[in-house]
Amino acid sequence: MFTIGIDLGGTNIKAALVDGSGHILRQCSCPTALPRPAEIICDDTVDLCRELIRQANEPVTGIGTGCPGTVESKSGMVLYSNNLAWQNFPMGRYLEERLNLPVTLVNDANAAAYGETMVGCAKGVHSAVILTLGTGVGGGVVLNRQLLTGYTGAAAEPGHIIIEKDGALCTCGCRGCLEAYASATALIRQTKCAMTAHPHSLLNRFASPESVTGRTAFDAAKAGDEAAKQVVDNYIHSLAVGISSLINIFFPEVVGLSGGIANQGEALLKPLRRAVEPMVFGHDFANEKTRLVCCTLGYEAGLIGAALLAGQPLPMW
Amino acid sequence: MFTIGIDLGGTNIKAALVDGSGHILRQCSCPTALPRPAEIICDDTVDLCRELIRQANEPVTGIGTGCPGTVESKSGMVLYSNNLAWQNFPMGRYLEERLNLPVTLVNDANAAAYGETMVGCAKGVHSAVILTLGTGVGGGVVLNRQLLTGYTGAAAEPGHIIIEKDGALCTCGCRGCLEAYASATALIRQTKCAMTAHPHSLLNRFASPESVTGRTAFDAAKAGDEAAKQVVDNYIHSLAVGISSLINIFFPEVVGLSGGIANQGEALLKPLRRAVEPMVFGHDFANEKTRLVCCTLGYEAGLIGAALLAGQPLPMW
Repeated sequence: MFTIGIDLGGTNIKAALVDGSGHILRQCSCPTALPRPAEIICDDTVDLCRELIRQANEPVTGIGTGCPGTVESKSGMVLYSNNLAWQNFPMGRYLEERLNLPVTLVNDANAAAYGETMVGCAKGVHSAVILTLGTGVGGGVVLNRQLLTGYTGAAAEPGHIIIEKDGALCTCGCRGCLEAYASATALIRQTKCAMTAHPHSLLNRFASPESVTGRTAFDAAKAGDEAAKQVVDNYIHSLAVGISSLINIFFPEVVGLSGGIANQGEALLKPLRRAVEPMVFGHDFANEKTRLVCCTLGYEAGLIGAALLAGQPLPMW
Repeated sequence: MFTIGIDLGGTNIKAALVDGSGHILRQCSCPTALPRPAEIICDDTVDLCRELIRQANEPVTGIGTGCPGTVESKSGMVLYSNNLAWQNFPMGRYLEERLNLPVTLVNDANAAAYGETMVGCAKGVHSAVILTLGTGVGGGVVLNRQLLTGYTGAAAEPGHIIIEKDGALCTCGCRGCLEAYASATALIRQTKCAMTAHPHSLLNRFASPESVTGRTAFDAAKAGDEAAKQVVDNYIHSLAVGISSLINIFFPEVVGLSGGIANQGEALLKPLRRAVEPMVFGHDFANEKTRLVCCTLGYEAGLIGAALLAGQPLPMW
């Protein structure tokens, strides 16, 4: 028995046929081509699913869909998606009526977190917090091998825990969210500030203000640049504050990091572990500690996670 | 069938015989009389349990124990308790060997959170976050009517999420924890600061620096004092930041507040709800919202919660 996982993004609609062990058997995609009406985007999604169902040599038992924004899993509604410019669109029902299969709708970062926990960086563990350090900070929480969806399906939004009250303005309109400090966007902003403040720093040789990426500060820091080191240290400190709060809430077996910044690997993880450790409550006395690792499934995490969630009634926590 | 709940505090050891609906049938207690060796304190606890077992007219099937500090539920170990000055004491096994009944060991704030969720302020809901605003900020999280214990049993420590990086020093040694802003201790400290800064404020008529309590600022604010209003506003803002972070993680049905400060009731809840609302992610689009309420079981929450947890294998999330 197979399931289909869908990853609906701002650029592409991806779909994958996945077996029960989380292996992708086939993949297909088409451009999201925004702006288009929700119904047309879903019709394209239906076509992708039908193609995969036709190709499958075993029955397809359900569809799992990861969608950016705030979703209400129990009703299959996309309450609000800034990326797609959707509001109160019944995506779950729309797909179910056309495909005649049960559709499980979750937030895309939740789908990826579930994939990483079931068959990726946290495979075999019971609890994990996954953070995606990208344009924003997304993520998801898996407890007892089940996705934490919250009362309405909107949980978890780890990017919107507040790490500095009255701090930096976040895209959500609040001040001090983790996302405003630990996203790639925030790191790029911090790097640009340092480039202006330190015109002779290597940062200005590694990039122009227009070409700065989430790698620039890490690269210049590795080359010994002091201003870059400061940017990286501050970035890691803020991320460590957020991760410590999450550990002090969940005490999970694993915290996994994905997204562009996580490509730094041990250059990020080593100082991050050092910064997190003393902020974990009771760390002096704990026999077992949360492991801090990088994710392993890349962009396929969302497809695999969505497929593995297909047909599952989501707990309404 | 009955169970026994134990609430081991720094002042008293309390025990209660509880029925399956969470009603207390009998209670007894004795002084903790610190400092005394862990074994002697546990021997007194065993005596209280034996007394209740003797008095019960139905079989007692298990013991639930709430203990201050960091506990490892799966091994029944108290890893560290600052209040009791214990470290790595196998309380669960010690009681089990003497009482010949299964013992479930949890953190005392977790026990209270479970009691409030099952039969108190959050009765009938599936998920709740309970915060105790006392000397510190304790609390617990119940999801799907099960206690969130974390990988080791140390979860959750909502008082030690960081709301202001590099902020006020907390008793745990870190900076910026919610506890350092939202405990009664923090409110008293903030009130004293305002008394010094505003010698003509009503605060100084309502209390001397030695007699300040968690009520002083609320009382003076109600009487119209501006300095007191500022203290209350700042306190509520910090608490709102912490609660918003917890909502953005869990999106629970209920957040319940207990402890001395929660006695303010609507004088606290009304402005708190107003402050929390705009910081909840996606609040503009949510159909259902977290209810913010006061707890109802008082000090009995811990006893009842511990009793209801008795005999339950704790999920090792």
